[in-house]
Amino acid sequence: MKVVALAGGVGGAKLAAGLAACEELSVVVNTADDFELWGLHVSPDLDTVMYTLAGLANPETGWGVRDETFRALEMISTYGGEAWFRIGDRDLATHVLRTERLRRGEGLTEVTAALCAGLGVESRVLPMSDESVATVVESPAGDLEFQEYFVGRGQRDEVLGVRFRGIEDARPTDEVAAAAREAEAVVLCPSNPVVSLGPILAVPGMREVLEGSGAPTVAVSPIVGGRAIKGPADRMLASLGHEASARGVARLYEGLVDGFVIDRVDVGEKKDIEALGMEVLVTEAVMRDEPDRARLAEEVLRFAARVGGNGGERGPGSGEQ
Amino acid sequence: MKVVALAGGVGGAKLAAGLAACEELSVVVNTADDFELWGLHVSPDLDTVMYTLAGLANPETGWGVRDETFRALEMISTYGGEAWFRIGDRDLATHVLRTERLRRGEGLTEVTAALCAGLGVESRVLPMSDESVATVVESPAGDLEFQEYFVGRGQRDEVLGVRFRGIEDARPTDEVAAAAREAEAVVLCPSNPVVSLGPILAVPGMREVLEGSGAPTVAVSPIVGGRAIKGPADRMLASLGHEASARGVARLYEGLVDGFVIDRVDVGEKKDIEALGMEVLVTEAVMRDEPDRARLAEEVLRFAARVGGNGGERGPGSGEQ
Repeated sequence: MKVVALAGGVGGAKLAAGLAACEELSVVVNTADDFELWGLHVSPDLDTVMYTLAGLANPETGWGVRDETFRALEMISTYGGEAWFRIGDRDLATHVLRTERLRRGEGLTEVTAALCAGLGVESRVLPMSDESVATVVESPAGDLEFQEYFVGRGQRDEVLGVRFRGIEDARPTDEVAAAAREAEAVVLCPSNPVVSLGPILAVPGMREVLEGSGAPTVAVSPIVGGRAIKGPADRMLASLGHEASARGVARLYEGLVDGFVIDRVDVGEKKDIEALGMEVLVTEAVMRDEPDRARLAEEVLRFAARVGGNGGERGPGSGEQ
Repeated sequence: MKVVALAGGVGGAKLAAGLAACEELSVVVNTADDFELWGLHVSPDLDTVMYTLAGLANPETGWGVRDETFRALEMISTYGGEAWFRIGDRDLATHVLRTERLRRGEGLTEVTAALCAGLGVESRVLPMSDESVATVVESPAGDLEFQEYFVGRGQRDEVLGVRFRGIEDARPTDEVAAAAREAEAVVLCPSNPVVSLGPILAVPGMREVLEGSGAPTVAVSPIVGGRAIKGPADRMLASLGHEASARGVARLYEGLVDGFVIDRVDVGEKKDIEALGMEVLVTEAVMRDEPDRARLAEEVLRFAARVGGNGGERGPGSGEQ
């Protein structure tokens, strides 16, 4: 089965790794978190997905590289350079080589493919766009660049609004369009719907490309029991006037997804989500380890096949208790 | 005493460290070895001098940083990137920050000052020029970029000629000119006369700036007993038609230096060097440890003062046995 997954950082990368284990996968990744540090182009979500698919991700943090050291960062700190974003020595190699290639004129899609090839990643990791897009977080402290909000200030600011600077000039790459055309299932991974999948879906033409695929489209809720599995998605949804719940996320994807995957603890929201015109799969939606990823990926793909195959008729594999 | 030293890499850096310990020092450093690797601007001689003055140099190699790791390099190698030039993790920080500042439009002199400030280096480390100059080694295998010859191919090629690409557009910086104006002694460190001090002296206007200082100028031979203390200077001198001896080096500095420092083993060349119009100091010219650096620096400065003070009359401090 040819699968297209949309992903941001850690949560999305985990499900992508599960999907990659069983299917021909293209992951369309948020690049609106990208920023420049020390003159280097850093792509946090692309790297999290790439490292996770390569089996190199740091199991404790979910981001960065396992068995990492921070000697270059310490030296940069000695020089008085910016040290708030913790780039490790192995990770630094990625940013150096990416930046070199970008400066030579290669596109981010081409560069990412080369880096993935170097790490033996067989799935396609596709930036949502080769154009530069930057998430700006509007807060009581003023406009914040995304990584300033997310890492620099530890997500402590209330999010009053989110803008994607440059989004009007972005477009889905040919590679994303081609992957969508061939897709037999589209999976929205359990990433932050506002700042991870939000920018991907806001790229002009992206929704048309995905809808044009005709493939069943399913999303996995990143909110379980009213809390984000990781990160600030719950508070962000609430402060932006959405409901911090699986149902609240489902509403954001209304019209786009055919099926929605929620955790057992949220079974009470099932009917409301179905009322949005979605099939619902109730299962264990939290991935604690690698077997969890594979299990959830398989369930999600079976669910997608069912949603696509019978127009929404419920079958015995739904996992609902 | 205000001292201007001209230096290349390891040997020059050692004497510079000795000079820095006792005097107000400006080191004019060869930048014709500079090159780009992974899109980063690498300045091997500037870094060797800076790390040595900062007490951070690797005592085993003379270049690079002590207690170094190579995790980024290993990762770059995994990606299939160039790994022939061994940049360590701490060293990498230097190149990243230098490159960032250069791309912002700062000159190499300004960038070097900022890096030195970060490492607590109080002496002034001055690139010979802010313009880009590149040493090209002509060999039986064709023209080689300097680091390709020096590191990539391990100095195995016969050197048939040396060119400094871009030298015609280079000029001494204002900082070099100012340091020379104030100098009370100029010291040519025991660096390779062809590819380390050669480019510095080949910068149009550099000899005039140094001669215009009116300060006594002394050189320390990098050749002892017919062999380079470190590096390929002996073979390079021979293949370029010079004599691989202290005398051979002295001839290259004829007209520029007032005094020449040779090792005891080369005492037999003393008269020939004096015949070039130079005073000669015979001493232990090889620096094996830090006390050696300080001792040689003190002897060199006393020698310079004497050469400048009495027009060449020999005194009891010459060290000759």
